[in-house]
Amino acid sequence: MHIGILGGTGPAGSALGARLASVGYEVTIGSRSADRARDVCLELTEKYPELAALLRGGDNAAAAACDVIVIATPWDSAATTVQENAESLAGKILISMANALVRVAGEFQPLLPPRGSVAAHIQAAAPLCKVVAALHHLPAKELGHLGSPIDSDVLICSDDPASLRIVAEIVDRIPGCRPLDAGQLSNATAIEAFTAVLLQLNVRYKTRVAPKLTGIRE
Amino acid sequence: MHIGILGGTGPAGSALGARLASVGYEVTIGSRSADRARDVCLELTEKYPELAALLRGGDNAAAAACDVIVIATPWDSAATTVQENAESLAGKILISMANALVRVAGEFQPLLPPRGSVAAHIQAAAPLCKVVAALHHLPAKELGHLGSPIDSDVLICSDDPASLRIVAEIVDRIPGCRPLDAGQLSNATAIEAFTAVLLQLNVRYKTRVAPKLTGIRE
Repeated sequence: MHIGILGGTGPAGSALGARLASVGYEVTIGSRSADRARDVCLELTEKYPELAALLRGGDNAAAAACDVIVIATPWDSAATTVQENAESLAGKILISMANALVRVAGEFQPLLPPRGSVAAHIQAAAPLCKVVAALHHLPAKELGHLGSPIDSDVLICSDDPASLRIVAEIVDRIPGCRPLDAGQLSNATAIEAFTAVLLQLNVRYKTRVAPKLTGIRE
Repeated sequence: MHIGILGGTGPAGSALGARLASVGYEVTIGSRSADRARDVCLELTEKYPELAALLRGGDNAAAAACDVIVIATPWDSAATTVQENAESLAGKILISMANALVRVAGEFQPLLPPRGSVAAHIQAAAPLCKVVAALHHLPAKELGHLGSPIDSDVLICSDDPASLRIVAEIVDRIPGCRPLDAGQLSNATAIEAFTAVLLQLNVRYKTRVAPKLTGIRE
């Protein structure tokens, strides 16, 4: 499986790309600037030479041509980026990991997009995609620290159960991550907004929290 | 400290009342019908005779006359109940534990109240109260099972830090519960909506989940 990351040169996108390559996926990090994407891949493969065979950079069109695509742009340009690549993305799994957040006086607050979530907004912008919301709560720093497991539950939701299962299999390959089926895409509202709470806890307790749900047996 | 529970005869309200009495608080369970509240207290003290000295039933006015008040009505009558008792409640801590949820085709979905959360709606309905959002994720059944600890983090948010701290002290007395400062009341949106995810996981995995945040040292 070849995974493309639209707008993947930021901290979360590049860390995810490296992590996915480290567990055996072919990954194309995309960007509006193919040069920028190649530079980011060069930096990653200098740090982790074992990724060189699996990780490459390109423009967003190259990322959109992959089998499964992650949209890793800032939340407010996600829908535009998806629309620009709608033809390549049609019928494919599109993973939305964005959170609409704003920082007011040092405190993170969730913003509610008109359709309730970034994922719902993306689904409306690209109705032929199978949008799956996932990976919102993974801290970029830990994600990019390839030696260490992450130890976090990953809440996944989608209106297409088969796509949800495929994304769960991808997540399950990341050491320490446990995929959880959180139901339909309407729950992305709660999952995205909850990121503000996690970031707030990080600030308040000077740490980096990860959500775990007790009571679920393996 | 005497804690009143407005609309406290439902599963969550009565379980919370019993639990708070079990850790030493005087508790008045209120209801539109004082008789109904007294019946509920009678049932509780038959089961747990040691609560008899601390737990009583009354009308909502009696609950609103307490030092700290919890609003435990269904979410869509919370603001009305608060407004009806606004005079008694003015200046006091008012704990909002309601979640606006709907079940569609067997799946829980969060509803977004116009101000983003039930807590914000209540705060607008009773601007002189110090609204604190807390206790949303505690399952009523486990809460009412007084012998057992609950083993859950309790996310608390408020625009009044002193009130947040007082509620954190109350939560800290409940065995197994860890109070966490989740910042301002705007985060109630995320905390309330997240309940839909937890209920969805309960259905999906046939269990009862509780949220825990890893990475926070005691």
